[in-house]
Amino acid sequence: MKTMKISEAVVRRLPVYLRFLNELSKKNVQTVSSQDLGQKLDLNPAQIRKDLAYFGEFGKKGIGYDVDYLIEKIRQILKLDKIIPVALVGAGNLGRALCNYNAYLKDNMKIVAVFDSHESKIGDTINNLKVKSTSEMKATIQELKVRIGIITVPAAEAQQVANQFVEAGVEAILNFAPMIIKVPGEMRVHHADFTTELQSLAYYLD
Amino acid sequence: MKTMKISEAVVRRLPVYLRFLNELSKKNVQTVSSQDLGQKLDLNPAQIRKDLAYFGEFGKKGIGYDVDYLIEKIRQILKLDKIIPVALVGAGNLGRALCNYNAYLKDNMKIVAVFDSHESKIGDTINNLKVKSTSEMKATIQELKVRIGIITVPAAEAQQVANQFVEAGVEAILNFAPMIIKVPGEMRVHHADFTTELQSLAYYLD
Repeated sequence: MKTMKISEAVVRRLPVYLRFLNELSKKNVQTVSSQDLGQKLDLNPAQIRKDLAYFGEFGKKGIGYDVDYLIEKIRQILKLDKIIPVALVGAGNLGRALCNYNAYLKDNMKIVAVFDSHESKIGDTINNLKVKSTSEMKATIQELKVRIGIITVPAAEAQQVANQFVEAGVEAILNFAPMIIKVPGEMRVHHADFTTELQSLAYYLD
Repeated sequence: MKTMKISEAVVRRLPVYLRFLNELSKKNVQTVSSQDLGQKLDLNPAQIRKDLAYFGEFGKKGIGYDVDYLIEKIRQILKLDKIIPVALVGAGNLGRALCNYNAYLKDNMKIVAVFDSHESKIGDTINNLKVKSTSEMKATIQELKVRIGIITVPAAEAQQVANQFVEAGVEAILNFAPMIIKVPGEMRVHHADFTTELQSLAYYLD
């Protein structure tokens, strides 16, 4: 499975499947069909079958998918069965909101460190995490074995923070700043700014 | 162009193209090739040419795309040349962060109303917007002709807010609450929670 190249679009849909499957599991639902999944998630059932077929023969014809088995498989595929420490830079409203989301991250992905470059924020406590100075980024990130960095600083500061993440050795960045950041080729960056979400929604207005 | 069905993946890439094109335009760059776009955005140039070809023959072989013309076309396609009022429910950290993003939304899409159901937040001012009670949602949304609703309340309150948006007549919802909401079939909902962003990033870790 390791050598297989899966498209980004598929990778982005897997967490959506996972979220819905987790809801089903909580309700003790044992099997689900691609039709049910498709209706709930506004996706073509054939698309869902194709996505899941990347990872093996999970479903049984006429019965559907075993919910708990599928959850386990998707978690393995997304590597959520491993511990993934996350660090965040930018303790403004958005950074605080994300830290408070930590409670929802039941998987082993957790924000373990928060940084800011402004004196007024350093030392604050957000959801049990003390805000540290960005000057401590490299040491803390290496100590806590942080693998993913989140950027929630203003656009003008985003590239510098990205550079610091790269230097500290994180492997992937989730960037909320409304600008494109440059990183070395092997690094993965997802842009998550709201403008693009809103703009793509506008397309669907009549 | 109206009858053409464009895939969601393409619609989601257009704002990303637009953001980068706007940066080029600011720097007075007049033309850009699909290779340049691809390198900058970590996308296959052939994919970019295919995406843009949905909307007509923009590019010139050997020269590339006219930056300002492409900006204008994408804005038309995304309907960003029209005014789109947006309302937000949930004046917590995330809601505040989004309201502060208003400054970045140079397009005609603006958050024009903010609501919360908690007495302690009603009456607060965020970025020149006064937080109103959710009991005023329907009247205010209809008065201001709001077309898109943003949900930034906790998961347990999200469905109720969605119902109120539907009743008030918004056409699309951007949901940040970490749960799936149900809306009538013709309505568009984008889920934008951070968990799925983080989970899809995890896939790319070694």
